[in-house]
Amino acid sequence: MQHIQSYISEHKDRFINELIELLKTPSISADPAYKNDVLKTADAVKLALEKAGCGTVEICETPGYPIVYGEKIISEDLPTILVYGHYDVQPADPIELWDSPPFEPIIKKTDIHPEGAIFARGACDDKGQMYMHVKALELMTQTNQLPCNVKFMIEGEEEVGSESLSWYVKRNQGKLANDIVLISDTGMISNSQPSITTGLRGLSYVEVEITGPNRDLHSGLYGGAVANPINILTKMIASLHDENNHIVIPGFYNNVEELSLEERAEMAKAPFLLEGYQDALDIDEVFGEKGYTTNERNSIRPTLDVNGIWGGYIGEGAKTVIASKAYAKISMRLVPNQDWHEITELFTEHFKSIAPKSVKVKVTPHHGGQGYVTPIDNIGYKAANKAYTESFGVQAIPQRSGGSIPIVSLFEEELNSKTILMGFGLDSDAIHSPNEHFGIFNYLKGIETIPLFYKYYTELSKRNL
Amino acid sequence: MQHIQSYISEHKDRFINELIELLKTPSISADPAYKNDVLKTADAVKLALEKAGCGTVEICETPGYPIVYGEKIISEDLPTILVYGHYDVQPADPIELWDSPPFEPIIKKTDIHPEGAIFARGACDDKGQMYMHVKALELMTQTNQLPCNVKFMIEGEEEVGSESLSWYVKRNQGKLANDIVLISDTGMISNSQPSITTGLRGLSYVEVEITGPNRDLHSGLYGGAVANPINILTKMIASLHDENNHIVIPGFYNNVEELSLEERAEMAKAPFLLEGYQDALDIDEVFGEKGYTTNERNSIRPTLDVNGIWGGYIGEGAKTVIASKAYAKISMRLVPNQDWHEITELFTEHFKSIAPKSVKVKVTPHHGGQGYVTPIDNIGYKAANKAYTESFGVQAIPQRSGGSIPIVSLFEEELNSKTILMGFGLDSDAIHSPNEHFGIFNYLKGIETIPLFYKYYTELSKRNL
Repeated sequence: MQHIQSYISEHKDRFINELIELLKTPSISADPAYKNDVLKTADAVKLALEKAGCGTVEICETPGYPIVYGEKIISEDLPTILVYGHYDVQPADPIELWDSPPFEPIIKKTDIHPEGAIFARGACDDKGQMYMHVKALELMTQTNQLPCNVKFMIEGEEEVGSESLSWYVKRNQGKLANDIVLISDTGMISNSQPSITTGLRGLSYVEVEITGPNRDLHSGLYGGAVANPINILTKMIASLHDENNHIVIPGFYNNVEELSLEERAEMAKAPFLLEGYQDALDIDEVFGEKGYTTNERNSIRPTLDVNGIWGGYIGEGAKTVIASKAYAKISMRLVPNQDWHEITELFTEHFKSIAPKSVKVKVTPHHGGQGYVTPIDNIGYKAANKAYTESFGVQAIPQRSGGSIPIVSLFEEELNSKTILMGFGLDSDAIHSPNEHFGIFNYLKGIETIPLFYKYYTELSKRNL
Repeated sequence: MQHIQSYISEHKDRFINELIELLKTPSISADPAYKNDVLKTADAVKLALEKAGCGTVEICETPGYPIVYGEKIISEDLPTILVYGHYDVQPADPIELWDSPPFEPIIKKTDIHPEGAIFARGACDDKGQMYMHVKALELMTQTNQLPCNVKFMIEGEEEVGSESLSWYVKRNQGKLANDIVLISDTGMISNSQPSITTGLRGLSYVEVEITGPNRDLHSGLYGGAVANPINILTKMIASLHDENNHIVIPGFYNNVEELSLEERAEMAKAPFLLEGYQDALDIDEVFGEKGYTTNERNSIRPTLDVNGIWGGYIGEGAKTVIASKAYAKISMRLVPNQDWHEITELFTEHFKSIAPKSVKVKVTPHHGGQGYVTPIDNIGYKAANKAYTESFGVQAIPQRSGGSIPIVSLFEEELNSKTILMGFGLDSDAIHSPNEHFGIFNYLKGIETIPLFYKYYTELSKRNL
């Protein structure tokens, strides 16, 4: 550990300056106007990986932006870590809400970051978190402490859906073979309480259309005599949850993973203030499935939410119309072992079955994704926890995220790899928002923790053989 | 009766040509570009009333378009009929769907109108039906058969809400004093089955807003843990009807008028083919309150319909959002004796009471109106029925309309008058749509039936004294 801290101490100003340089290029993948900047950033990452010690680095062409691939293979007998990150960033809009220009990085102190934070688009998401891995590699190669093989795969389309990544991974399974995937693109609880994201929810997203009469009708002349598709839609949606907020679709919970009491107890250690949560959202009460806490409801339990609803007259004033059609977008967040294709089918079948004969129902699946989980007895999780414990002086807390990161499922399906999500960002870092920033503390702590992960992962792998 | 038929037979070509002339002026009240045409039409109506025998005719200025007022007072001892109609018309859009120009009237034969129909905007609604009354007056004065006093009030803003009419009526209660209001601005069942509209429903129209969290949230991170205002709104709306489609708002049915078996039996005589009704709307089944027929559900029973609903993401594709707010426009059609102010209050109170504490509810009343009914033992109804029976050879059927005609409530409130709705149009006349038309048969039958109404109404009034 001593060599790590010494190296960081000696080189930290350069580490910060190199990141600041990288942040000056607006690599906005969503806007074609920045194409050259995106490509320029890919080149900068290639150069950085070469300098950090990768033996082989390539700019891999794809149907979209290139993927920067680098590797340093020491021995076939050692485990291989695949580092994933992305060099593209979100658009800076609304630009007028930034206190300093998004691509002119500056360091400012804040209450949460008394040691200063770098303010720039991409500072945290994901240039800063990605670059920690580049600098950790440098540190390990320069101090001759790299304990295993490493591969880097840094893409340029994460903010627009990672389509080319999917294309690339499916065509390079051999090249990308690894024992564990390591990603820093999430957050942790606080600077004094690290956490590891161990689970992500899957998703089934559908659109429903209810058709009543074949045209809009006058509500005076027809009201009460024909099925109003909006009223019917509300009845159908309302019936999807029972009085305990359980979802009533037959078979919906069949494969739901039930967490061990140990894992629930671990999760419950995360600091959580219900009052603060309610205040932040300006709600008088939380709401959800009976028998589970708020943090469990939004992570280890599947849910069904209407994301959009529309039908009839929605302009100013009043129109006495009975609409011909009513629509809703409905998504279900799924937990590990729920197959999203199966859930989509169960939903469709049930939703059609509960419609009265007076309407017609159409269900169109939009998209979906599988849930994902890394068990806390996985050696990757154990290695990460040991690394955090050493660098932060406190054990990490396993956290299930309610969201979905499709690439994690992609790696599991195509590369048969588990992923360790070692995030060093904070909720308050304003990723995707104006004034995005990344704490100097977090950046350096990441560079410190990552080599420890390599060390413990390699040790545990050997013991596991 | 002989003199009526003779006069019509002798003058029918002129009656038709005069109406055709009136239809050539595009008196579209909704579009300021036609202002001169609207005013020109008011002048034409004034002239027509003078020629028909009104002693006094005035163009009465209002804040909007003028009201043409005319009267012929024979004796203070005789009853007074107030004829209401309107000289403005709907816009002709979509103009490309007209088979002939909307303001170049032509006569064409159709399956329903083998004797021909006049095709033009306003042919039925309401120039044609209004002009029947002018020609009926001419007939009565020319043949010296006018049995009572008559007042005409023909407005120019019916298609845009009759605001100036309301202004005018409230300022001229003495001048407009009458025993009965007579209007031809509705329809009848068929050319072989006349009907009289005896009831109109009232209305309470509200907008509701449900607020959950104070901003839109990511459905992955918050889904299942906070109340989704769209899901809550669907639950709340769905709960407003029970399994028999009764409305569950406490007190909602307290004052609902229960029809006599006699009146329900009369109504049930109206020819109605459920299969044809369903086919026309392309529905497999009707839907409504248990214990009532389709025709009762949309006329004598109060209803609650969502006229519009919206919230969350309603664009193309998918967005995993939990909306902060969800909205609906909800209207209740009311039957006589239900006070719309009271119903609006009952709704508001109930709707707020069923919301979980996890959301906030706002209810904004839009507008409303009282229901209206003319009992079939009213002498106006009896006189109309006798008139139809004589001219059509078959008794009229009383019909409740599900819609609301605010001016009828206005006349009841401001003039203390009942209204007789003697409509001669057919559902197929395409009012408010392209290719509006009015049957020659219907036009002449109206001119024949109206003097009979005057005769029987005067006779029954004398007997009633």
